[in-house]
Amino acid sequence: MLIPQGFQFAVAAAGFRYKGRDDLCLVVSDRPASVAGVFTTNRFQAAPVTVARELVARGRARALLVNAGQANACTGEAGIANCRRTLEMVGLATGLAPEDILPASTGVIGDHLLLDLWEKAVPDLAAGLGRATAQDAAKAIMTTDTFCKLAGCELELAGQQVRLLGMCKGAGMICPDMATMLSFVCCDAVVEPGVWQEMVCRAADLSFNRITVDGDTSTNDCLLALANGASGAVVDGEDIAVLDQALADLCRDLAYQIVRDAEGGTKVVTIRVVGAVNDREAEQAARTVAHSPLVKTAFFGQDPNWGRVVAALGRSGADFDPDRVSVAMCGHVIFAAGQPVDLDRDALLKPLLAERDQQVEVVLGDGPGRCEILTSDLTCDYVRINAEYRT
Amino acid sequence: MLIPQGFQFAVAAAGFRYKGRDDLCLVVSDRPASVAGVFTTNRFQAAPVTVARELVARGRARALLVNAGQANACTGEAGIANCRRTLEMVGLATGLAPEDILPASTGVIGDHLLLDLWEKAVPDLAAGLGRATAQDAAKAIMTTDTFCKLAGCELELAGQQVRLLGMCKGAGMICPDMATMLSFVCCDAVVEPGVWQEMVCRAADLSFNRITVDGDTSTNDCLLALANGASGAVVDGEDIAVLDQALADLCRDLAYQIVRDAEGGTKVVTIRVVGAVNDREAEQAARTVAHSPLVKTAFFGQDPNWGRVVAALGRSGADFDPDRVSVAMCGHVIFAAGQPVDLDRDALLKPLLAERDQQVEVVLGDGPGRCEILTSDLTCDYVRINAEYRT
Repeated sequence: MLIPQGFQFAVAAAGFRYKGRDDLCLVVSDRPASVAGVFTTNRFQAAPVTVARELVARGRARALLVNAGQANACTGEAGIANCRRTLEMVGLATGLAPEDILPASTGVIGDHLLLDLWEKAVPDLAAGLGRATAQDAAKAIMTTDTFCKLAGCELELAGQQVRLLGMCKGAGMICPDMATMLSFVCCDAVVEPGVWQEMVCRAADLSFNRITVDGDTSTNDCLLALANGASGAVVDGEDIAVLDQALADLCRDLAYQIVRDAEGGTKVVTIRVVGAVNDREAEQAARTVAHSPLVKTAFFGQDPNWGRVVAALGRSGADFDPDRVSVAMCGHVIFAAGQPVDLDRDALLKPLLAERDQQVEVVLGDGPGRCEILTSDLTCDYVRINAEYRT
Repeated sequence: MLIPQGFQFAVAAAGFRYKGRDDLCLVVSDRPASVAGVFTTNRFQAAPVTVARELVARGRARALLVNAGQANACTGEAGIANCRRTLEMVGLATGLAPEDILPASTGVIGDHLLLDLWEKAVPDLAAGLGRATAQDAAKAIMTTDTFCKLAGCELELAGQQVRLLGMCKGAGMICPDMATMLSFVCCDAVVEPGVWQEMVCRAADLSFNRITVDGDTSTNDCLLALANGASGAVVDGEDIAVLDQALADLCRDLAYQIVRDAEGGTKVVTIRVVGAVNDREAEQAARTVAHSPLVKTAFFGQDPNWGRVVAALGRSGADFDPDRVSVAMCGHVIFAAGQPVDLDRDALLKPLLAERDQQVEVVLGDGPGRCEILTSDLTCDYVRINAEYRT
């Protein structure tokens, strides 16, 4: 994994919730970086989201500080104070200004940060800066994730090699009690904060905002991105579109990994809707199919059950003429012009439904609207993980 | 069970899908009845829904004809023709006019009615009219239901005894492939069709439209209600409100039974939201909590997990101030003014969460808006039933 220039990592095992593993992570840029953030739309915003949003607005930052174990969500004023206290601790130990450190937390909603454990762990964290790899960092932010999620790329911009590194955690839009999708991107290009923020918003919209595991947007979801300019590549003019594309691809890669690691999931299902009146209607239709428990259980059961897809489209509220709808699964059209296609769907599709990656393609009409959403299947293990987690 | 005067039942085992049980049901009034119907809002409407809607518009009908096994949904023009053909068959065998018979179907979406089996079964059905009980009829319309769903009541109106009888099937808003919630009400009062339709709409809104198992509104959902006037009680003036209330209570009873028999369900959870800006906002909040897979799995796990309730409220899009929200589970306030209440929720709530009936009470603010939704829990058995059904 190629690391963008000027970034260092540190991890520590603070014992917040998990024993015998790292659960605290620090990413530091050796110089002020342009910073951009995209935050959860949940009306209950976790304390680190409130604080990070405020710091991101300054346009520049130096570091990311992430803990796994307590989400510090729905914790009131005390939660905000605790969050700021952790930034001060790390600032003191590293020499960074606290306002240059962006916080993010994942874990149980309503639980407060355990400041005594922070006090113990922060000196180790600071002392270890530069000794951890990107993998170590990605592992330290995991909760119910079964693998760590990293993506990287290198591209030439303004005659320089520019590197992008991304990491994130799932394993649901909200995990079992364990809140949050968190995602972080490091880049060593020189990009103005305003331009960077626009790029990051676009990338999030094309990636993280296009996946669902259980439809439960968490209180802690965030994407934080630093561009520190260490490569010397000044991104301007046409290069903006190039970096834009690379960033979106990187985020899509990470988003795919989240769905791939959905709690209890065995499938990654792409729901593609085209021919809608507009993109909004396409999205409404695609999201309804992607969230349908019956569609999701059918994929778990490897059942070519187009009826559930059609029923979900019908209740989506999207605007279309039922007699013009067609649906394809595994590349085979099984419902066309509002009627079932006469084929032996079990014989044809059953073997194909055993694959991990699945596609549902819906044509709603001949409009320009389109949307693609990634979803997981709904399995017994999902229920087990989420029902038994706290017991 | 007291049966409204002038109604008779018949059942037959046609072998549409289930062997060794009745799967065809006929309910006949001895005189024309005022008829009212409430139908699915799914854009894909099953053939029997299209036909019944047309017939209900005539204001009067004599009979209900219901099959379990094939939903006759998404079956195009052939589906409509097949539906009409079954009405003709039954008309011929019983002497009823086909346009006086209201059809309803439940079963696999996309499968056509098996007319050869209908031809064989209809003579038996007609010959047996009056020999079946209401229980027999309610059993014949079951699919994955584990018990038959009946409710009845008697009240005095205009100096006469008036009886109401209701039956319905679940076991989800849409069942595993097996579409549909179907519900039927018989009444022997004299009620004008327009007044009856208004009553039935109101009752549906307060009952069936306030429950959810998986959020998947089926292509076949319908509530059909006959009021044949056989009691001689002319419902007018203040009696309208009395019958209105009795009908709503009856439908609520049936709706409760559907959630009680939700696929794989072990809990009936009432989500009550008050203090919202208006009823619409309250409904949005209540529905989001009621549909949340994480809330539903938590109830399965008997986990006092208020964080998931709060996270669902936060993403619901409903308008409220997070700092004024409180949440009670099992009658105990565990989140107040936007912050966790300091109590040992595990010790206090765990024993209470073992009960079948559960309450979540949410106060969003001090507005007049309120809404109550019934939901089930999400269990391993739900996934198993819906994933393995066709294999």
